[in-house]
Amino acid sequence: MALYEAMFTQYSTCTAQVLVTNLDFHEDQKRQNLNSTLQELLRMNIVPIINTNDAVVPPPEPNSDLQGVISIKDNDSLAARLAVEMKADLLIVLSDVEGLYDSPPGTDDAKLLDIFYPGDQHTITYGTKSRVGIGGMEAKVKAALWALQGGTSVVIANGTHPKVTGHVITDIVEGKKVGTFFSEIKPAGPALEHQTQVARNSGRTLASLHPDKRSEIICLLAELLTERREEILAANKMDMDLAVNTGLLQAAMLKRLSLSPAKLNSLALGLHQIAVAAQDSVGRVLRRTRVAHNLELEQITVPIGVLLVIFEARPDCLPQVSALAIASGNALLLKGGKEAANTNRVLHQLTQEALSMHGVKEAVQLVSTREEVEDLCRLDKMIDLIIPRGSSQLVKNIQRAAKGIPVLGHSEGICHVYVDAEASVDKVIKIVRDSKCEYPAACNAMESLLIHRDILRTPLFDRIIDMFRTERVKIHAGPHLASYLTFSPSEAKSLRAEYGDLECCMEVVDSMQEAVDHIHKYGSSHTDVIITENEHTAEQFLQLLDSACVFWNASSRFADGYRFGLGAEVGISTARIHARGPVGLEGLLTTKWVLRGDGHTAADFSEQGTMKYLHEKLPVGQPLAGQRDSN
Amino acid sequence: MALYEAMFTQYSTCTAQVLVTNLDFHEDQKRQNLNSTLQELLRMNIVPIINTNDAVVPPPEPNSDLQGVISIKDNDSLAARLAVEMKADLLIVLSDVEGLYDSPPGTDDAKLLDIFYPGDQHTITYGTKSRVGIGGMEAKVKAALWALQGGTSVVIANGTHPKVTGHVITDIVEGKKVGTFFSEIKPAGPALEHQTQVARNSGRTLASLHPDKRSEIICLLAELLTERREEILAANKMDMDLAVNTGLLQAAMLKRLSLSPAKLNSLALGLHQIAVAAQDSVGRVLRRTRVAHNLELEQITVPIGVLLVIFEARPDCLPQVSALAIASGNALLLKGGKEAANTNRVLHQLTQEALSMHGVKEAVQLVSTREEVEDLCRLDKMIDLIIPRGSSQLVKNIQRAAKGIPVLGHSEGICHVYVDAEASVDKVIKIVRDSKCEYPAACNAMESLLIHRDILRTPLFDRIIDMFRTERVKIHAGPHLASYLTFSPSEAKSLRAEYGDLECCMEVVDSMQEAVDHIHKYGSSHTDVIITENEHTAEQFLQLLDSACVFWNASSRFADGYRFGLGAEVGISTARIHARGPVGLEGLLTTKWVLRGDGHTAADFSEQGTMKYLHEKLPVGQPLAGQRDSN
Repeated sequence: MALYEAMFTQYSTCTAQVLVTNLDFHEDQKRQNLNSTLQELLRMNIVPIINTNDAVVPPPEPNSDLQGVISIKDNDSLAARLAVEMKADLLIVLSDVEGLYDSPPGTDDAKLLDIFYPGDQHTITYGTKSRVGIGGMEAKVKAALWALQGGTSVVIANGTHPKVTGHVITDIVEGKKVGTFFSEIKPAGPALEHQTQVARNSGRTLASLHPDKRSEIICLLAELLTERREEILAANKMDMDLAVNTGLLQAAMLKRLSLSPAKLNSLALGLHQIAVAAQDSVGRVLRRTRVAHNLELEQITVPIGVLLVIFEARPDCLPQVSALAIASGNALLLKGGKEAANTNRVLHQLTQEALSMHGVKEAVQLVSTREEVEDLCRLDKMIDLIIPRGSSQLVKNIQRAAKGIPVLGHSEGICHVYVDAEASVDKVIKIVRDSKCEYPAACNAMESLLIHRDILRTPLFDRIIDMFRTERVKIHAGPHLASYLTFSPSEAKSLRAEYGDLECCMEVVDSMQEAVDHIHKYGSSHTDVIITENEHTAEQFLQLLDSACVFWNASSRFADGYRFGLGAEVGISTARIHARGPVGLEGLLTTKWVLRGDGHTAADFSEQGTMKYLHEKLPVGQPLAGQRDSN
Repeated sequence: MALYEAMFTQYSTCTAQVLVTNLDFHEDQKRQNLNSTLQELLRMNIVPIINTNDAVVPPPEPNSDLQGVISIKDNDSLAARLAVEMKADLLIVLSDVEGLYDSPPGTDDAKLLDIFYPGDQHTITYGTKSRVGIGGMEAKVKAALWALQGGTSVVIANGTHPKVTGHVITDIVEGKKVGTFFSEIKPAGPALEHQTQVARNSGRTLASLHPDKRSEIICLLAELLTERREEILAANKMDMDLAVNTGLLQAAMLKRLSLSPAKLNSLALGLHQIAVAAQDSVGRVLRRTRVAHNLELEQITVPIGVLLVIFEARPDCLPQVSALAIASGNALLLKGGKEAANTNRVLHQLTQEALSMHGVKEAVQLVSTREEVEDLCRLDKMIDLIIPRGSSQLVKNIQRAAKGIPVLGHSEGICHVYVDAEASVDKVIKIVRDSKCEYPAACNAMESLLIHRDILRTPLFDRIIDMFRTERVKIHAGPHLASYLTFSPSEAKSLRAEYGDLECCMEVVDSMQEAVDHIHKYGSSHTDVIITENEHTAEQFLQLLDSACVFWNASSRFADGYRFGLGAEVGISTARIHARGPVGLEGLLTTKWVLRGDGHTAADFSEQGTMKYLHEKLPVGQPLAGQRDSN
């Protein structure tokens, strides 16, 4: 009590201890008294701290609760009784575990339940009692169900977790997914874990289909996009109207949200290209080795498993990403923005319609917009790769939230163009203009222009500045440039800024090597360009610079899957493992090793054994034996 | 005070408020009084809570401290004065930032300092004041330096971080790296951040060397291992003696710690193989495309960057891993076990000696054994890949600690062998024995044997059981097997156990499909085997099963880089992105895209432009233009 008092005093809140016994609930007069006392305390802004009056009642005997009625001998039951008595909206029961698991926490398959319905009780196996307090989880659940019947919702959550202490109660009140929520009503949509499991199972069937069948699904989806145009556009109109009426979206966002017959046609065209790429993705033999006589090893491409793609307003992402997943035999969870909910629902229905033609309808799932990204990232055992498609802020947030799940994407595109002393004037103007101005919001647009010192006070320098003026590009001077000029533009706040607009940083370097060092220090290893006529300098730059894309005399805007000729672009990655730079379909594939023997053992190759390793490379061209149609 | 009192009361500790003024420090008699009061309180186990007597002194004026002397007008200075006065060993100053940064936190290059020496003060740039309290970081540092001069060590740390609250003080007292430690003495070794930076820079030079030179370094290291054998073995004897004397290592660990001339010879042999593989690793062209006329794209292999390899007792790991890093042009941080400290030091010296021949001595760094794995994992912006080599417990711990840095390795090897109804008896006995008994501690050893129901009560079943008895393999029955047998072995506690010993789980399945489902549910996607004479069943299994290695009629023990013929093994990965299964040198490589143009812009290819994409595949055989020797 002293501690409660001291803590609440920090918030200028008074507390009052109230001690009760069983009788206070059983006799109407006493119940009435208790009720008015508590109501009066709350009216006066005094927080009642309630406990059993241990001094006058016998000590609690666990598990001696009456059938159907609960006593108040343990605090869980007391809390339940009080909550119902006071007609509380919500009872929060804090424990030392995260909530209710379907089997004792720590066992093989124990899974935390987000929501628990009274009807599900038979699916739970309880363990031995928790270390804290009497009662254990079973008693807590009993009390919670009792309160639920009385009209009070209940959350059982962890109150001891140092990370959330102090936030757990506000999180619960704000409706976040914390602990286990006891509810009478099953929600409309399926549970996320269930969706993921269904997607994985259906995805395995999808992966085992003949590539032709995966292509057929994608082609059908492309056809549905044009055939069912009216349905799609009607749903899109609902989203657009809602967005316009609420006025929450900016013009640029509205443009991305809106679909048109032309957009749908070009989308369908893109899907047909992906259908072609699907022919040669899963089951490709990358390596074939005769390990020994009758022992043959193949390394073949296989899907990664379950992908989670998170995208913002753009609904055209949905069929495109679905086609990529289908082409690579991956299961897919899609999480789109609220703004496009209606359009996404229709597009997802069409995708499932196409998938149904080969019995894999559930391989692509649309995740409810109510699910938080943080909740999705918790599923680290069920999701194999997250692909955020959208602003770099979205990517950054997801990289932060994704604990243990790899994320494919670049969080920043701080691209540099370095103008060497021996650069051609025309190429400089052409490439710098294209890199900065063609589409300044793109991640492969130039953010920093580095110029060799010898160019200062030359006509080329003036022409660059003139071009920027014509194109209305705002220049931020780096410290060296500022120190060289008498009147310089405003100094850059950071040499690591991603403007994403008609703005850029401009800085002077003494040499190609200094340009490389500058880019290593301030760049994001996305795409960096050198402009020079000196082949030796160019090749040095291309070799020394450690970025995903390094270009010579070409615009940074070429860093793009379509422009690279990869067929379809999954994204651009600045990660250093798996895929790097513009990523095509192969970024959605991994490999497995298939070894076919005839009773071979490792002991056969030991000193006492009779066999020798051959490790003979075999051609990989032949069709894969295992790539049969299993349906 | 009320809060302090309430909190300390929870630990049955009394507190006493002591209010002081400047005069209490300046007059000898008063200092004496204050000192004895505090000593007496501490003697009585009462914790003094000390503050300035604000009621009788003027309010604090920031920055008006006397030159060289500090006042007690802010709490930081008061704490410093009191700590020195009381001859405290340690003063802990809690702030709302993690500690002292070399520039204001949040700016471009701000870096938290682990240790701060009085001489380093000029390297710090201070920002505006912290939100909490008067004084800001500059005042804190001034107070800290004053206390340090008076003989009290100081730690400035974050007291508001919810994750560490309650632990921060005990962590500091236990000597963990928390916040900034103010010390008079520079430690013997270099700081970890510095080592990483030096390694990255030297690694970039290593990567730009001609492949022949990388091979030469590895060959020289191999020679040094035999030439300087005496030196290595002497250091190893020191480690062995220490281990034997302290008796901390088990026999198996001692065996792994011990080196011999034979071990060194075979190590040198392995290094020569890696030197050959080094010829064809970095700068290999994987793809070459003519994007358009005079616009050529290459995808080439490049090093990942900075690797951190953590290994246990085995000192022979050091030269092997170093050779792999050198062959792939990667910088390397090595963290070995304490037990092998002397051997590792000598082996690392030899490695640096070999690296020196081409001026890249610092590319391989030995991390002090004092550094904790958690501290290494904090360097997520500086380390690109962590490779743990050792027990699966080690791998698991590191996967847990590595926030944001990818980890290459398998945390579990729960390998299955499935005996189909149509299996050949001889192959079953041979393969099951080899998979379980050849080296039961290996990650690719069988942990679970699944048998088709039709095999129960056949001679094959009895022969399997007999073989297990002969080989002294302890059987744990799965629930189905147990239900079929009248007298069954003890039931398996979990179907997901990695025994790593002469033990295994045995379970009955109804079909090949059920075997696949069982493995998907309980396996670790490492290596799984089918034994059958039915090719159709085998191919179905190979295709349906989603593991890194899937084998037909061959022992699970073949899942190994050497046996696969990969030349050198970096590790075995159960991750689903980047490398999967046994990983050769290519697991240490990533790619970059090199585009060579002639002033090309994206606008040239627009509807108004004059150019067309060709996307013509070119042969990749030619030597890479950029792969010149830059030294």
